Amino acid sequence: MSLSNLLSTKIVLASKSPRRKQLLEQMGFEVLVDAIDVEESFPKDLDIECVAEYLAIKKSENYIKEIEDNSILVTADTIVVIDGVILGKPKNEQEAKDFLRLLSFKSHKVITGCCLRNNKNITRHFSQETIVKFKELTEEEIDYYVNKFKPFDKAGAYGIQEWIGTVGIEEIQGDYYNVVGFPCNRFFELAKEIAE
Amino acid sequence: MSLSNLLSTKIVLASKSPRRKQLLEQMGFEVLVDAIDVEESFPKDLDIECVAEYLAIKKSENYIKEIEDNSILVTADTIVVIDGVILGKPKNEQEAKDFLRLLSFKSHKVITGCCLRNNKNITRHFSQETIVKFKELTEEEIDYYVNKFKPFDKAGAYGIQEWIGTVGIEEIQGDYYNVVGFPCNRFFELAKEIAE
Repeated sequence: MSLSNLLSTKIVLASKSPRRKQLLEQMGFEVLVDAIDVEESFPKDLDIECVAEYLAIKKSENYIKEIEDNSILVTADTIVVIDGVILGKPKNEQEAKDFLRLLSFKSHKVITGCCLRNNKNITRHFSQETIVKFKELTEEEIDYYVNKFKPFDKAGAYGIQEWIGTVGIEEIQGDYYNVVGFPCNRFFELAKEIAE
Repeated sequence: MSLSNLLSTKIVLASKSPRRKQLLEQMGFEVLVDAIDVEESFPKDLDIECVAEYLAIKKSENYIKEIEDNSILVTADTIVVIDGVILGKPKNEQEAKDFLRLLSFKSHKVITGCCLRNNKNITRHFSQETIVKFKELTEEEIDYYVNKFKPFDKAGAYGIQEWIGTVGIEEIQGDYYNVVGFPCNRFFELAKEIAE
């Protein structure tokens, strides 16, 4: 398949994340957002490393509308894991600050699960992991970030593309865009496999 | 020093790079661009790992205007190193494509040297290295990127923040913003040391 054919594929993104939409557009795709509400529950005994991929597949299965020709349905889920515990989206200012205190001066994992499905019901799904290491954050830095950026829509209470990402993250190991919220590179190769 | 005092420091950026200016602003600083022209030559026997820091210091020494109170002069230089060779900015379309063919399916180093100087002539300088791994790029992908994005102002002929960064880079190890062109995290800690 030629690159221009691949980039003419329409992406149906069943996710509210503005960052995922923006990244898919940066990759050259036309994106139609058609978010669905799916309860983000998973079996208690599921290995923590498998949760994001499980939820991405669940979201794909819960999208029951027909997928058009030359389109790919994309679902995804991102989690932050530290010391064997999942940090979701913080409920309030206090929890956001608690999350950042947990992340400070340590490495954690960002895992994004992703599922692709075309109109012939051919699917691909995978999980991508990136390790992120924060410096020791001061209380003042945590307060400043949470008060100014209000990271309540972000797993782990931070956006690597925001202020805290520039001053607070010492290094990452893996795909950067996976931390922003979408594993672009691997997605692109799998899209080649199932695009028409 | 309090965070609000630190962020009231004015940065005098002696660099034309719009990306460096944008990153320093993202860190919360007010930035005044005052670019100078310095010949980017270095001693032939200088270790390749030291070139970027050498050039950052040279640029700082060549800035002869007075630095005001509560200001820091910032100079920087970014190089891309693969197989012991420095890739600078590509001269034309052909060289840009040649550079990307060299980077394809391999890891390379991005090294940014940075120098800070305040009005008391107190300086800090350092070099930051990030490893970047490209997937195997197709000729079509290389053509598409170079024709559309014209990466002639970028060392190594690519911007990680552009199309090729989303679809072509498998992983990095180190500071992401160092690859964009400025080692934000380490800079921030050193700015704390020499800001008034």
